[in-house]
Amino acid sequence: MCKRALHYPQVETPPPQPFLKSLKNTLNEILFADDPFRKIRNESKTSKKIELVLRHVFPILEWARGYNLNYLKSDVISGITIASLAIPQGISYAQLANLPPILGLYSSFVPPMVYAIMGSSKDLAVGTVAVASLLTAAMLGKEVSAVENPKLYLHLAFTATFFAGLMQTCLGLLRLGFLVEILSHAAIIGFMAGAATVVCLQQLKGLLGLSHFTHSTDVVSVLRSIFSQSHMSKKRPKLFWISAMAPLVSVIFGSLFVYFLHAQFHGIQIIGELKKGINPPSITHLVFTSPYVTLALKTGIITGVLALAEGIAVGRSFAMYKNYNIDGNKEMIAFGMMNIFGSFSSCYLTTGPFSRSAVNYNAGCKTAVSNVVMAVAVAVTLLFLTPLFFYTPLVVLSSIIIAAMLGLVDYEAAMHLWKLDKFDFFVCLSAFLGVVFGTIEIGLILSVGISVLRLLLFVGRPKIYLMGKIQNTEIFRNIEQYPQATTLSGLIILHIDGPIYFANSSYLRDRIGRWIDEEEEKLGKSEENSLQYIILDLSAVGNIDTSGISMLEEVNKILGRRDLKLVIANPGAELMKKLSKSKFIETIGKDWIHLTVAEAVTACDYMLHTAKPDSPEKISGVPEFNNV
Amino acid sequence: MCKRALHYPQVETPPPQPFLKSLKNTLNEILFADDPFRKIRNESKTSKKIELVLRHVFPILEWARGYNLNYLKSDVISGITIASLAIPQGISYAQLANLPPILGLYSSFVPPMVYAIMGSSKDLAVGTVAVASLLTAAMLGKEVSAVENPKLYLHLAFTATFFAGLMQTCLGLLRLGFLVEILSHAAIIGFMAGAATVVCLQQLKGLLGLSHFTHSTDVVSVLRSIFSQSHMSKKRPKLFWISAMAPLVSVIFGSLFVYFLHAQFHGIQIIGELKKGINPPSITHLVFTSPYVTLALKTGIITGVLALAEGIAVGRSFAMYKNYNIDGNKEMIAFGMMNIFGSFSSCYLTTGPFSRSAVNYNAGCKTAVSNVVMAVAVAVTLLFLTPLFFYTPLVVLSSIIIAAMLGLVDYEAAMHLWKLDKFDFFVCLSAFLGVVFGTIEIGLILSVGISVLRLLLFVGRPKIYLMGKIQNTEIFRNIEQYPQATTLSGLIILHIDGPIYFANSSYLRDRIGRWIDEEEEKLGKSEENSLQYIILDLSAVGNIDTSGISMLEEVNKILGRRDLKLVIANPGAELMKKLSKSKFIETIGKDWIHLTVAEAVTACDYMLHTAKPDSPEKISGVPEFNNV
Repeated sequence: MCKRALHYPQVETPPPQPFLKSLKNTLNEILFADDPFRKIRNESKTSKKIELVLRHVFPILEWARGYNLNYLKSDVISGITIASLAIPQGISYAQLANLPPILGLYSSFVPPMVYAIMGSSKDLAVGTVAVASLLTAAMLGKEVSAVENPKLYLHLAFTATFFAGLMQTCLGLLRLGFLVEILSHAAIIGFMAGAATVVCLQQLKGLLGLSHFTHSTDVVSVLRSIFSQSHMSKKRPKLFWISAMAPLVSVIFGSLFVYFLHAQFHGIQIIGELKKGINPPSITHLVFTSPYVTLALKTGIITGVLALAEGIAVGRSFAMYKNYNIDGNKEMIAFGMMNIFGSFSSCYLTTGPFSRSAVNYNAGCKTAVSNVVMAVAVAVTLLFLTPLFFYTPLVVLSSIIIAAMLGLVDYEAAMHLWKLDKFDFFVCLSAFLGVVFGTIEIGLILSVGISVLRLLLFVGRPKIYLMGKIQNTEIFRNIEQYPQATTLSGLIILHIDGPIYFANSSYLRDRIGRWIDEEEEKLGKSEENSLQYIILDLSAVGNIDTSGISMLEEVNKILGRRDLKLVIANPGAELMKKLSKSKFIETIGKDWIHLTVAEAVTACDYMLHTAKPDSPEKISGVPEFNNV
Repeated sequence: MCKRALHYPQVETPPPQPFLKSLKNTLNEILFADDPFRKIRNESKTSKKIELVLRHVFPILEWARGYNLNYLKSDVISGITIASLAIPQGISYAQLANLPPILGLYSSFVPPMVYAIMGSSKDLAVGTVAVASLLTAAMLGKEVSAVENPKLYLHLAFTATFFAGLMQTCLGLLRLGFLVEILSHAAIIGFMAGAATVVCLQQLKGLLGLSHFTHSTDVVSVLRSIFSQSHMSKKRPKLFWISAMAPLVSVIFGSLFVYFLHAQFHGIQIIGELKKGINPPSITHLVFTSPYVTLALKTGIITGVLALAEGIAVGRSFAMYKNYNIDGNKEMIAFGMMNIFGSFSSCYLTTGPFSRSAVNYNAGCKTAVSNVVMAVAVAVTLLFLTPLFFYTPLVVLSSIIIAAMLGLVDYEAAMHLWKLDKFDFFVCLSAFLGVVFGTIEIGLILSVGISVLRLLLFVGRPKIYLMGKIQNTEIFRNIEQYPQATTLSGLIILHIDGPIYFANSSYLRDRIGRWIDEEEEKLGKSEENSLQYIILDLSAVGNIDTSGISMLEEVNKILGRRDLKLVIANPGAELMKKLSKSKFIETIGKDWIHLTVAEAVTACDYMLHTAKPDSPEKISGVPEFNNV
């Protein structure tokens, strides 16, 4: 059967809000989109409130109560597993950052503890990451040589870590987590791949046992420096195959190999002595004196943002598998605290590396306790087992890094981007090329810049298309998408697909003019079927500013002079507010603003087939048209 | 009567386009939105083609043929009128730019000629403008003193003009006219007001006959420097009233006054001798040697962009009154050429000042010939009448400038902004304060930065609201805008009001989750009226990138785990392309993508009141629901 709408509702203007109220709402939407304090707000008892707040700040209070023996079992297993990965990886990445190997172990002790208390992810395994390590080396290395001035370099690394942590905490506290989102998925893919390529090339140093190696991170100089010494590269090719094997195994075998063959005397570089004992305090080593403080600050902020982006992305994806939520801003505070405390205890920048977290997840971890287990295991190693690493050959570490890096070059993902969205692929590519042929910062700036440019282009050039009526229905749609949709004689329906702002208002004015010109050219100058109505479907116009409003007024004037009538369909709440404030509604007449396109078309149809009265009131209630 | 839709069309995926083709279309939309070459393209004969191209480049060929005596009459009248304004104003503004007064006359001779040939506006009167003059003084003055080194200062002014013209021409040729649109209307209002305030304060110098005056343009130092010499300000208050009178009259009276009373010997500063003869060539004076070339370049670009923004805005608004079109990019080329030739003939930056063009329009000009008439009148002055200006007191020029400036402070417009759009008012205010308390560049950067931030915020935080069914209709709308709209049990309809990009995808994911949480809290855990369907209305989602697609996939997974079904309504062409490429459509099932919200609701309704089959095919064609 077919319902008849006896009376047709008008387009409503929402009730006006006091300025401060609406401002508050806007800010809430920007900063507290996920409304994290809902529970706490709804709670009446103060004591309960405090408890909720504490639980909010320290998630451990949340899950510790439900903790049981089975959980512990699985957490211990996974904890040991990631420890066995963490130790060699930690040492390798520390090398990558031109820092003493032992720092890799230190960084797997304190930060995981902190995260276990404050972090809200159950699967994230804390540790250092290759990209951040490389970035530290690249940025600090530019001004302070790790070889000539190791002490200062080390202290700057701590300071950078401190600033990174501080920045991360502040971002979290200020609810500015969304700033991290400026690093789009596409950008990160390209960035990782580029970094991985550079890292691998850098590692050829260790792998081929090259001395005097370039520290600059761009392919050209790296390759040059390899081939200039390639005569050495024939030295120990057989060792290369070890890189295929699992990190710990290769470390053990490598160490045994060196130990029994005394290979260290035949030119194989080894780690050498690692100082026994857990993290020494480093809070007194932080450098806050110019000129170095600015360098540390810059390094800290860039590495910190990157680490944040990776850590949160990793946490989110695993949370999705297990269907629990992660509050980005809370995570930032957790990351920030673990880096601040880290910088006080001889650790450098840590986050949630993908590889380690994946292992943790696959080993069946249940809670952040697995991080604690790993930390304990590492502590034990620091206290008693460091001598075992004396003979570990650097080449093994290089192989470990390369193995890890190759996993970062996600060729399929890039192809996927190309298939789905050419622009995203372009962003990804520019990040990759920027990193590989320029510096890491260049890659970063390029990709972010291009991504932002895209957003601006969307607003600057909104789509505006012709709508037609789909046969046998009262539905109006884009005639390019629905070829069977037909246009009507005497009027054209234009759909604007985006907000109307200063950046696009004159474009829209020109474009509308052009649609009309083209239509009139098609029709020719014959009288009976000439153009009379322009219907603007504003359903998709989210917002408008003053330039946009004056554009509409302008268009209305121009149409008036061409004996065309402007008709508006389905303006949203924001628009109605501003259009009524600006008296635009009075200007074109309230009866020419319709709830749906179909309604507008009916009104025009009626006019077209009768004499032209001033307003179509008498028929503004036609039942059978009720769609957009 | 009531049409019945016998069969319901599916949501269509537009036919795939080859990458290069779609790229070409996109670029066309960005750069050739107004399709300027349509006529030329459609023309077959080559000779005609060439003629059309020439006419396109030199609009004078367009209108010269239709030119007649009546036109000439009105053009002569208006030409003389604007000349009488141009001469004193030109001299005043040259003073404002710390340039020799005569340059003001030179700049009203060559540029108008060039514009008459290449410009497409009939009402624009070419000349120098206060803001650009002030800006030149402020920027050049920072590094080169016009007092100590007038020659270099003068040559740098020419060079800056040359660069400005070059930049304008390039912008036009590269079709980058839209870049000027980044200066929003609101920003310009605030900017003008700020500049006017500063100029007026600067003019108190001439008005109060102060010597040793500050050249810095911020209020604080200007005021300080006034009050430090305020004892002089009692000197000639009566002269102040002249400022009310029309420029030329005040110049004449002022000059006579000085002449007969020999006031120049009593401390009134006068113009003094103006060199006879028309523009001397200055092409050899252009400075292309560092360090000054960069200064000139910077000045040229900033002043050039501002001049462009004003000139095009003025041209557009008068074109609107007389209902003819102006091609922004063509105008830019015209402005650029007139400034390049200007810089070769001892002129500084010119554009289409509002005041002068308004006079031109009111005097009834018909074509750009009025510019030629003005130019001739100025040339005659230069050749024979310069001695008359010997006695013109500077105080008169100051009054003229102040009178002109006060017109630029558009208080009503600012109030209008506040009423309509608080954010635009904020932009305007920041521009004003930036100029008044900082420098002109600060005001510029502030306002542009904030305007762009707004665009990014729109994309970063799209509105997402709950839709309800409007009683007695099948229309679904925002329940905040239409309070009488009612939600349905068992499902919620969410409308996303903007594109889905990396910058907002995780916000949208959180927000959707929050809508669902809130709804389920409302419903409580009762079984029969529990939530089962989430309908996403994508009508207003103009575009989506890969991050957006993975967000949708994520949401779908999450909903799946909560036993909720995701239903899509009315995705646009772009979306359908990408969703089908990404196999998302297969994932949620083609039958769960509907052409309209009402259709989606019917499908869900049907499901709700029967057992849950896999797909609602059998009813995907319900007649009485046909709207969004």
